[in-house]
Amino acid sequence: MAERTKITLKSPDRPPMEFWTLAGKNLWDSIMTSGMVSPGACGGKGNCGQCKVKLEGEIDEISDSERQYLLPEELRTGTRLACFCRVKGPLTVYLDPLALAIQDQAWLKSDSPPVAFSAPVKNRQVLIPGMEKDSPVPLLTRLARALPGLKLELTVDNLNQLAQIDRIGRPALELQALVFKEQAVKYIGRKREKACGLALDIGSTSLFAVMLNLEDGQHLAISTKPNMQRVYGADILSRVLHCLENPDGLERLQQILLNNLSSMIEEMLEETGTSPEHIYYLVLVGNPVMLHFFLGLNPAGFAQAPYAGIFCDEFTYPAAGLGLPVNPEAEILLLPQVGGFVGADTVAAVLSLPDWRSSRFLLVDIGTNGEVVVGNRGKLWAASAAAGPAFEGGGISSGMIAGDGAIDKICLNPEGGLEYNLIGDSPARGLCGSAIIDIIASLRQGAYIDSNGIITELAGEKLRVRQGERGAEIILVEENESFRGAPVVFNQEDIRQVQLAKAALRTAIDVLMKEAGLEYKKLEKVYLAGAFGNYLNPHNAIDIGMIPPIKTETIRNIGNAAAAGAIAALLSPDKQREAREIKEQVHYVELALYPDFQSLYLNNLNFDPAAK
Amino acid sequence: MAERTKITLKSPDRPPMEFWTLAGKNLWDSIMTSGMVSPGACGGKGNCGQCKVKLEGEIDEISDSERQYLLPEELRTGTRLACFCRVKGPLTVYLDPLALAIQDQAWLKSDSPPVAFSAPVKNRQVLIPGMEKDSPVPLLTRLARALPGLKLELTVDNLNQLAQIDRIGRPALELQALVFKEQAVKYIGRKREKACGLALDIGSTSLFAVMLNLEDGQHLAISTKPNMQRVYGADILSRVLHCLENPDGLERLQQILLNNLSSMIEEMLEETGTSPEHIYYLVLVGNPVMLHFFLGLNPAGFAQAPYAGIFCDEFTYPAAGLGLPVNPEAEILLLPQVGGFVGADTVAAVLSLPDWRSSRFLLVDIGTNGEVVVGNRGKLWAASAAAGPAFEGGGISSGMIAGDGAIDKICLNPEGGLEYNLIGDSPARGLCGSAIIDIIASLRQGAYIDSNGIITELAGEKLRVRQGERGAEIILVEENESFRGAPVVFNQEDIRQVQLAKAALRTAIDVLMKEAGLEYKKLEKVYLAGAFGNYLNPHNAIDIGMIPPIKTETIRNIGNAAAAGAIAALLSPDKQREAREIKEQVHYVELALYPDFQSLYLNNLNFDPAAK
Ligand code: FES
Ligand code: FES
Repeated sequence: MAERTKITLKSPDRPPMEFWTLAGKNLWDSIMTSGMVSPGACGGKGNCGQCKVKLEGEIDEISDSERQYLLPEELRTGTRLACFCRVKGPLTVYLDPLALAIQDQAWLKSDSPPVAFSAPVKNRQVLIPGMEKDSPVPLLTRLARALPGLKLELTVDNLNQLAQIDRIGRPALELQALVFKEQAVKYIGRKREKACGLALDIGSTSLFAVMLNLEDGQHLAISTKPNMQRVYGADILSRVLHCLENPDGLERLQQILLNNLSSMIEEMLEETGTSPEHIYYLVLVGNPVMLHFFLGLNPAGFAQAPYAGIFCDEFTYPAAGLGLPVNPEAEILLLPQVGGFVGADTVAAVLSLPDWRSSRFLLVDIGTNGEVVVGNRGKLWAASAAAGPAFEGGGISSGMIAGDGAIDKICLNPEGGLEYNLIGDSPARGLCGSAIIDIIASLRQGAYIDSNGIITELAGEKLRVRQGERGAEIILVEENESFRGAPVVFNQEDIRQVQLAKAALRTAIDVLMKEAGLEYKKLEKVYLAGAFGNYLNPHNAIDIGMIPPIKTETIRNIGNAAAAGAIAALLSPDKQREAREIKEQVHYVELALYPDFQSLYLNNLNFDPAAK
Repeated sequence: MAERTKITLKSPDRPPMEFWTLAGKNLWDSIMTSGMVSPGACGGKGNCGQCKVKLEGEIDEISDSERQYLLPEELRTGTRLACFCRVKGPLTVYLDPLALAIQDQAWLKSDSPPVAFSAPVKNRQVLIPGMEKDSPVPLLTRLARALPGLKLELTVDNLNQLAQIDRIGRPALELQALVFKEQAVKYIGRKREKACGLALDIGSTSLFAVMLNLEDGQHLAISTKPNMQRVYGADILSRVLHCLENPDGLERLQQILLNNLSSMIEEMLEETGTSPEHIYYLVLVGNPVMLHFFLGLNPAGFAQAPYAGIFCDEFTYPAAGLGLPVNPEAEILLLPQVGGFVGADTVAAVLSLPDWRSSRFLLVDIGTNGEVVVGNRGKLWAASAAAGPAFEGGGISSGMIAGDGAIDKICLNPEGGLEYNLIGDSPARGLCGSAIIDIIASLRQGAYIDSNGIITELAGEKLRVRQGERGAEIILVEENESFRGAPVVFNQEDIRQVQLAKAALRTAIDVLMKEAGLEYKKLEKVYLAGAFGNYLNPHNAIDIGMIPPIKTETIRNIGNAAAAGAIAALLSPDKQREAREIKEQVHYVELALYPDFQSLYLNNLNFDPAAK
């Protein structure tokens, strides 16, 4: 048998965390199993290059295929891709909080019994007499007698399984019961069975699901899929309009979403060898429109001011009615929403912060829109910035989502030219969100654009610039080096799109800071959430004015914070109460109605010359 | 407008009941609307001839088509078919308790506020403010504020309907909420809406459903259908064996049943213009095996001794999981069963008796099997007699269910020949249950069979008798007069089948009387339940020894008593408690294990010479 070996996770701003694994195990798998959600977009398959960690200790040799994902400097400092590494002995892993999303949960779990976790389910042994020939007592009656005071809520399938083993003449049966909150028995079997829950985060662009063991809080499986609704529009508003214009539009969009989620759940069930019956509880977060789609509620209220849905509070719904592959009596809890376009995902993101009640913080969640929350010692303000999809590569000539062939980092080289880093091993296809911010920052640093964002003459001298349909166009990768055979470009119109997006996001931040009576320098923490946040260079984000000029040490990348909040709520009724409290505390600010909004927005369109 | 006019219902053993109808209305419809379930097998269509009543008062002239259903003696005494009659003015209707099933409920309802009915649902007016443009409050939040202390459990469809009318700028909305048990709101609409429930009685042979208004207890619609599972066997045991032998047998039988019920429910919804969403609660009764089929629970336990199912107590199940066309959050209550083959239908039948706690009674429910209950001042004994389907025409050469072309009555004419009465206007097809008992009684009266049931020589002289494959065969209808072109016959083997059936039923009665320590003459009431009971000539049933020699005045035909009990439970939580109490009180007697059973049974096979 393989030897047990200890892994220590270190992160600049947290206590170290230790856990055990077996020698020979894959490092990425080991970290995953420890309860931490890894950021690798490819989920450990080794083709996204996003699971970079610095290592000290016993690890296998680096291979050529791993080497090609790493920059020379990274190779020098001992950086590896976790999903390529095989553990050989004791190991210290240095986590880069900007590169790797650390779930608070994982830390809570290792340090001490997590405050939030209260084991919603327990296994209990039950002994029932066999079926007697002269006074036959039905199986369910014998079970009820053996479990007094508990409500039996077994499914028909479960009862049929038990009936199979309840043979006449058998003297007694030793069984295991899953007891929920010391009240209800939802499953009885011959051996200890898993009671699982799902935390679901349904975004406009992608869907995320985690399967957890409700008895010990362990993560069992993860699944991420693109939201297939995008066929009906990349942005949520065109999907809402599709519903208004087509009588069966809502049903169609709901069905696409449910099928999407069903296939994710089925994958996780298969991966873990779990039967649907063992999924007893679901917690769902997402933006308000997605939550309406999920339930099949008409989202018409989001098509025009005052942008309100049908419901906004916590909502419980039977899963059976939706046809998801889960226990027919499972319940789905939709966490409360803030209002307008600010949804349960934002409430969940706040819920994932250990210090939302005590600190002064700014939370920016960059998805297809941008949600912003400002907290001032337990009081909260929230708004949704109509930033559009530019930060995700939407509406940008060579924009794309992070993946094989995406340029994810750009900087100026000493000669004033543009250098870039590629994800994966295919030729360059386009720019993902982090590179879009990098290129703007680099262009400003080189004085290749002015404070209005106009491409300067200097750019024409130092870079390859041509005239295109969307104005002056900087060629980043020539057509013969690119994947598609067309050059990877960045043009005047793209710059315009980023200006609009960063102005919207920044104005939202400015307005909320003002409402909260806070100045930037008073901020103790700045949390960047969303998949995007993981790869972002915070210096550049500040430089282009997307986020305010704050000390970069205060910045935390918290990855999919909404999912972390959903997980916490799944494992703890206290956290569910806390979510309701957050909803009570938060002041929703409708930016469209905010008096100074237009002038603030116009001010933010330009690039701040002071920061040059 | 038509004039209001009063109808008085009279029955020998009950206080008269009065209700109002409109002149010009059909009498059958009027009685139905009064809350009484009519016994007519054709449901008032005028082709079963089973809604006979004696009338005094203002009624329209008899038509030729009605006349052909009535015997000369009936015509003389003013008997009419209710479903043919048009009310002209005040009317007294004499109900024959042996011909017409009077639901206790109807009587309870008219005399006084029914003890059992506690209006599980009430309509309440709600006023909510409109959606304001600057501080939009979601619809559901406004509703929750207007209905403090109540739990909102609205369906998605309902919320979507309300969202449609919640237009911006509308100052306020006046709505009606359906409040359940003063606790939960399950529907809100612009106008008062019905809250409906279903009482279902699922028999091996036929299915019965009533839709009721939960707010006032009114019957809205009725549906009866043959149980389509019969393709897999007329008797329940062959269906159980089908499940044991085929891996998908159980699922198939369940699906047949659910489709069957769904189409019945859909019919009633259409007839009453109700949407499925308005069915909030279902109460289900039936024999134990049918209840297992309904839920999809393995009925293997019924294939061999000790004949026990998986469950026996009251059971609550979400309707959504079964795909019935009802509100997705509706619940189904399965009333408790007695044990063995004695099911929730028997518990419900006892529940329908006004005096089960105080009287000494015998209840015989004749279906495909026969269930017998003996009550002695609140203590109960029950058994299931394996009588087989002979009393329903099963296994009898010319047996058939009551319907067009069925012979339903047989007697001796003064010349010693056999006279019969036909249902409907087609030529004779066969004999239904009541005629099977009549013919045995007639053959005994004419000394055409001896005490062993053997066809005598005298029969050969007075009747048309031939030798057939099943022994001596009495020809009742010649082939040229019959529907099929083959004679309608009754033969030695048929007699044998009836002997076996009546012996089984009678032995069950004898055993239970003995267990209860009761003699026949102590019985205060004898209740005959089941569709069959309605047409039975009680003198003949006593004469052939099927039921004990008791005063015929004590006999009550209570029709579908199981359905009446299910209805009572649907309308009243008190009645649900009472059903549990009945289950507690009843001693189930397993006849197969009863020491004297064999000798008692053999004794009962013969026809009692004393009763000749
Ligand atoms: S997770 Fe390691 S390369 Fe993608
Ligand atoms: S109900 Fe009147 S004839 Fe059938």
